[in-house]
Amino acid sequence: MIPISNAFDHIQATVKPQSSESATLSSAVGKLLATDVHSDMDSPPHNKSVMDGYAIRASDIHSGQRELNVVETIVAGSWPQKKVEPGCAARIMTGAPMPEGADCVVMIEKTTEIRDTGSHRVRIELTEIVEGHHMMRQAANFSCGDKVFEQGHQIQPSDIGLLAEIGQVAIEVYKPPTVAVLPTGDELVDANRLPGPAQIRNSNGPMLIAMNHALGLPVHALAVGRDDETQLRQLVETGLQSDILILSGGVSAGMLDLVPKVLTDCGVKEVFHKVAVKPGKPVWFGQRLQDGHRTYVFGLPGNPVSSLVGFHLFVRHAINCMFGQPHRQRYRRAILTADHQTRGNRPTFWPGKQILDTLVSRQVQPIPWNGSSDLRALGAADCLIHFPLEKQNYEIDDEVDIWPL
Amino acid sequence: MIPISNAFDHIQATVKPQSSESATLSSAVGKLLATDVHSDMDSPPHNKSVMDGYAIRASDIHSGQRELNVVETIVAGSWPQKKVEPGCAARIMTGAPMPEGADCVVMIEKTTEIRDTGSHRVRIELTEIVEGHHMMRQAANFSCGDKVFEQGHQIQPSDIGLLAEIGQVAIEVYKPPTVAVLPTGDELVDANRLPGPAQIRNSNGPMLIAMNHALGLPVHALAVGRDDETQLRQLVETGLQSDILILSGGVSAGMLDLVPKVLTDCGVKEVFHKVAVKPGKPVWFGQRLQDGHRTYVFGLPGNPVSSLVGFHLFVRHAINCMFGQPHRQRYRRAILTADHQTRGNRPTFWPGKQILDTLVSRQVQPIPWNGSSDLRALGAADCLIHFPLEKQNYEIDDEVDIWPL
Repeated sequence: MIPISNAFDHIQATVKPQSSESATLSSAVGKLLATDVHSDMDSPPHNKSVMDGYAIRASDIHSGQRELNVVETIVAGSWPQKKVEPGCAARIMTGAPMPEGADCVVMIEKTTEIRDTGSHRVRIELTEIVEGHHMMRQAANFSCGDKVFEQGHQIQPSDIGLLAEIGQVAIEVYKPPTVAVLPTGDELVDANRLPGPAQIRNSNGPMLIAMNHALGLPVHALAVGRDDETQLRQLVETGLQSDILILSGGVSAGMLDLVPKVLTDCGVKEVFHKVAVKPGKPVWFGQRLQDGHRTYVFGLPGNPVSSLVGFHLFVRHAINCMFGQPHRQRYRRAILTADHQTRGNRPTFWPGKQILDTLVSRQVQPIPWNGSSDLRALGAADCLIHFPLEKQNYEIDDEVDIWPL
Repeated sequence: MIPISNAFDHIQATVKPQSSESATLSSAVGKLLATDVHSDMDSPPHNKSVMDGYAIRASDIHSGQRELNVVETIVAGSWPQKKVEPGCAARIMTGAPMPEGADCVVMIEKTTEIRDTGSHRVRIELTEIVEGHHMMRQAANFSCGDKVFEQGHQIQPSDIGLLAEIGQVAIEVYKPPTVAVLPTGDELVDANRLPGPAQIRNSNGPMLIAMNHALGLPVHALAVGRDDETQLRQLVETGLQSDILILSGGVSAGMLDLVPKVLTDCGVKEVFHKVAVKPGKPVWFGQRLQDGHRTYVFGLPGNPVSSLVGFHLFVRHAINCMFGQPHRQRYRRAILTADHQTRGNRPTFWPGKQILDTLVSRQVQPIPWNGSSDLRALGAADCLIHFPLEKQNYEIDDEVDIWPL
C-alpha cells in the first residue's frame, strides 16, 4: 500500500504525452492546444467606426467649420472610395472602415442632414471633438503575429469566436487517448435487466463510459468479463488496443485470480497495487508496451464509489499527463459547513456538495454516506472532500480540499 | 432601453417549459430530469459481506466455540445454498449474499483453515465480535421506492452509475430545444478564408454554435445572411422551424432595415429591444407562435463580445426557463484582485479570470479589455464580472458577482 502522492508520482513517471493531431473548429471544444496559437491578422484589420454617424476631420470643427460636404456612404463590408478632404465628411456605419483623411466619428444623433438640390451636406452639432473619437485604430485589440493562446490551453466554447476571427480553422491539439472500459464480475447483469438473486446491475460500466465521454475521450465499451479465462483474455486483448484500459471489479472468487493472470499473460506489467485511500484501496496500475504502442491499465475496485474515486484521482491524473498537464491543480480549498468525523487509517475522499450562496467563500457540505457501495450520496454530491490522516475530528469552518466531480 | 432585470422578467413570462422525452443512459448526461426518479430495488438488494472471510453466528464466538464447520463457499453472483447453523460457518467473498443464520463476517486474516480428511473446518482467531460486523444490511443505502433524484436535477457523468444500478435506462428529461444560428452581414467571410479589404471573418457563427453545443443543444448552422431580402427571408423561415433562432449582427446599412422587416413579415413579434447592459445594448427578443409551434428569436449585436454576453445573459436564461429552471442562480460572489474603474451609464459585464489558489475565498481578476470587438480578452477569461451602476470606482477586495462562462 503506497501513499496517494507516490501513486501520482508513479503515474507521472510512467505516462507519456500524446502526439498531436489537427482539430476543426467544430471538434475543438474541450481539447488542449499542443502548440501556441498566433494571429494571422491585425484586429481590427483596419481603422473602423464604432458608431453610426459621420467620419470627419477634427481640425474642421476646431477651425469653426461645422457644415461639411458628404462625399460618400461607407457600410460594413465596403471599402471607402474617396478621401475626406478638409470641409468634407463621409456617412459611415458601425464597423465600417474609416476613410483616408478622417480622424474621428460624430454619432448620427449629433448631426443634421442638409439636402439641397445638387448637394448633400451635414451640420455637426458639436463645437469640440478629439481625434480618434468613436473610432477604433487598426490592431487596437492585437496585431498580426501576436500570441492569442498558449500551449496547454483547454479550448472553451467562447474561444471558438477568436479562433474563427484569426482564421485558425485547423488547430493542433493533443490527441485524446482512446479508452476501453471492461467491467468484470459474474454477479453483473445489464442495467436494463431485473437482477436475479445474488445479482446486481452493472453500474460501473455505464458510469465509467459517461465519465470518459464527458472528458471528450472516445470509449470502447467492452462486454462484462466473466469467470472464463478464454472470454476474459479476448476482452483484455481487445481493450489493450486502446490507449487506456480500465477494468473494474473482479471480486468474485474466480475473478480474483483470473484478472491478474490474464493481464500478466497479455504482457501487462504492474506499476503499483493498493493505495492508501478510502475508498479505492485495491486500485491497480500497470502498462503494456508492445510493438511501439503503450497501453496504461487501471484496475479499479468493483464497488461503484471506489471505482468513481479511483477514476477521479488516478485515471484523470494519467489523462492530464497524456495532455502534457501533469501539474494541473484539480482541487480547491473550501470551508466545511458541518462537523465531520473520519475513521480508519487511510486518507478519505467523502462526497460533498458545494454551497453556491451569496458568500465569497467556497463552502462545502459533507453528505451522509454509507460507504463505497452507496452511489445515492454521489447523486447528491458535486465534489469529493479530502480528509487527510492528520486529524479525525473536523469542525464547522475548518478548511479542506475539494475535488470537483 | 429596459433594465436587465426587466429583460429577464420578459423572457421568463414569454418562454414555456419544453415537453419531456425519454433519454437513454448514454445520451442523458447534461440533460435535466422532467420527473423525480425512484429506485426499483433495495440497495444493497440483500444482506452482503463487505470482506473476504467467513460468515458466522456471533453467538458461537461469545459462547466460546471458535472452531466451526465450513458448509459452503459463497462468491459474488451465487446464492447461498445452506443455512449457517450453530457451530457452522460459510466461506464468503466480498459482495456475496449473506447466508441465512449468519449475522457477521470475520475477515480472512483473522482465521485459520483446518483441512482434515473428510472435514473442512476453520478456527476464528477472535474472542469478541458484534452482530453485523463486516456485513451490510439489505436496503442500507436506500429502499425500493425511495426517491434518488429530483425533477430539475441535471444529470452528471457520475450519476449514470446510480441510474444504471436502479435500472433507470430510459429517463424522462426536458427535451433540449433545437437552435438555429444565423449570422448576418455583408462584411463576413468564412473563417477558412482570407478577408479582403473591409471584410472580417465570421466569428459569431462558429462561437454561437459551439456555445449551444456545449449546453447539449442540437444546432442548425445557417448560411450567412446578406443584404438580399429573398435570401434572408429563406434563412429566417428555415431558422423559425427550430425552437430558438439566434441572429447576430445586421449592422451594415441595408441589413439594419432588412432584418426587422423580414422578421415582421415572417410573423415574429417583438417582446423587447435594447437593454441597459454593456456590451450588448441592442439585443432584441421576440417570438413567433404559428401552427402551435413557438419560436423564440434573439437578435444579438454583431460585435463578438456583445454577442457572447447577450448569449450568456439572455439566451441562457431562456434555455433555463425551457428546462423549468427560471430561478437557477448562475452567478457567484467573488473578491476583486485589482482596482477597476467603469464608465458610462449602463451596468457592465467585464471579462474576468478566477484565481484558483490555496485560499477559500473566490477571487477574480479583471482582464485588460478593449471593448466589444476584443475577443482576445475573452480567450483569457473564464467568467464575466458584473459591475452595476451603483459605483464607478471599484477597489481591490471589493465584492462582485461573477458569471462563469
